[in-house]
Amino acid sequence: MTDFAAFTAFTSLHRATTASPLLLPNAWDHASATALSEQGFPAIGTTSLAVAAAAGLPDGTGATRSETVVLARRLGAGSYLLSVDAEGGFSDDPVEVAELARELAAAGAVGINLEDGRGDGTLTSVELHAAKIAAVKAAVPHLFVNARTDTHWLGGREAATAGTMRRLDAYQQAGADGVFVPGLTDPTVIAALVKSLDAPLNILYSPSGPTVAQLGELGVRRVSLGSLLYRAALGEAMAVAANIRMGRPVGGDVPTYAQVQNLSVRGHDPGA
Amino acid sequence: MTDFAAFTAFTSLHRATTASPLLLPNAWDHASATALSEQGFPAIGTTSLAVAAAAGLPDGTGATRSETVVLARRLGAGSYLLSVDAEGGFSDDPVEVAELARELAAAGAVGINLEDGRGDGTLTSVELHAAKIAAVKAAVPHLFVNARTDTHWLGGREAATAGTMRRLDAYQQAGADGVFVPGLTDPTVIAALVKSLDAPLNILYSPSGPTVAQLGELGVRRVSLGSLLYRAALGEAMAVAANIRMGRPVGGDVPTYAQVQNLSVRGHDPGA
Repeated sequence: MTDFAAFTAFTSLHRATTASPLLLPNAWDHASATALSEQGFPAIGTTSLAVAAAAGLPDGTGATRSETVVLARRLGAGSYLLSVDAEGGFSDDPVEVAELARELAAAGAVGINLEDGRGDGTLTSVELHAAKIAAVKAAVPHLFVNARTDTHWLGGREAATAGTMRRLDAYQQAGADGVFVPGLTDPTVIAALVKSLDAPLNILYSPSGPTVAQLGELGVRRVSLGSLLYRAALGEAMAVAANIRMGRPVGGDVPTYAQVQNLSVRGHDPGA
Repeated sequence: MTDFAAFTAFTSLHRATTASPLLLPNAWDHASATALSEQGFPAIGTTSLAVAAAAGLPDGTGATRSETVVLARRLGAGSYLLSVDAEGGFSDDPVEVAELARELAAAGAVGINLEDGRGDGTLTSVELHAAKIAAVKAAVPHLFVNARTDTHWLGGREAATAGTMRRLDAYQQAGADGVFVPGLTDPTVIAALVKSLDAPLNILYSPSGPTVAQLGELGVRRVSLGSLLYRAALGEAMAVAANIRMGRPVGGDVPTYAQVQNLSVRGHDPGA
């Protein structure tokens, strides 16, 4: 698939004619990405928490640029569309963020997430974040830029209402192909936001929030799982270790050695 | 802790005065190792399947030397004792295997697993495998060498009886600190093997085999989980993704974002 064809395919997944939004599960390594792909998910995301936690580094602080690129290279040849969570681009220089985007696209990514939340709990200025988005789109037009605002996580009450829309407006004007508001789960707010947006809205799935189908009915076009699968995987491993220590049954549906080993063989696009 | 003190501590865990053997869970990244350590496991292993599957490479074929060293460096500064699964040492030259052992010890590992199974389904000659063990012990005396024989997986019926003991004898004479027979779950065979060994016997836990306590009663001194936790984690992530797609509850005990993020902070030995 050419870069442009992949971009078109990924974009079209955000414009499904049914009520079902694109459900984007987030992988943390080659095996998890390939296994998700084999479950029928056409597109796979990465999650910066997993990249950071796997390396023993803090998430959201710009510490994992090289690890993010390494993971993109591991997954970029897969037979699925890959979108990479790149925190804030690991730089406040739009030129450097555009260079990162070039590297990710060269690795095989069709999409990138860029967030305006910072490691210190503040938000990048709307102008700087818009400049990053514009720089990426100018450098790599066929990379789907999902512009994320962390107003609902970091911005407080005022920012979470008026602030969100002001930021998403600016990000759309800068060329964002989609916008992402993690932490937003209120159906009324989501429906109102959808009406005022041109770009497809991405919502972070929450186990205590609306289902994927309900989000689709509200007009959400993409639902991410963020770090949920990685965290669930880690929790299960801890539960299994505790069970074995206590002499209890392992439980769960555990893939065999051969099934996992085979993911390494099948996970490579023969054309890549 | 000095290298020698760590070796002494790890060795003593194989000689517990109670019937409980050392239960060694196998991690695949910094977060899983740190979380297991916080569950109270004093020693953590790695698993070559996870190293390979994470990178999209085949396991057991000598393809993951650099990934194995990278993981050892990520985990080597942790506040637990680390034993690294190094397949067959990624070389048929004992000098090169000893060099790998030096690198792993420098990364902070206190133990290494060396297996005689090969990627093509055959076994390394007993002489060559013994030579690898001897070379490692000569180069890094304070690295605990767990000599693994794959006779029960690869050697057929004849090899699995007479062949196992002949190999373990040779590996003990070469200086192995412990011996490992994955695939062996029969209580009678295990008890007989323990009687004829000087070195502590390591058995791979099987969900359909004896419990850890039962293995301890048979005289087993170390029980590894191998790739089980990694496979269980992967299976759980797939189950959660499927549940969310179907609108079903997520289920399970999922660590929070903050809990996982904190593993990166707490997982570093302040003295390292």
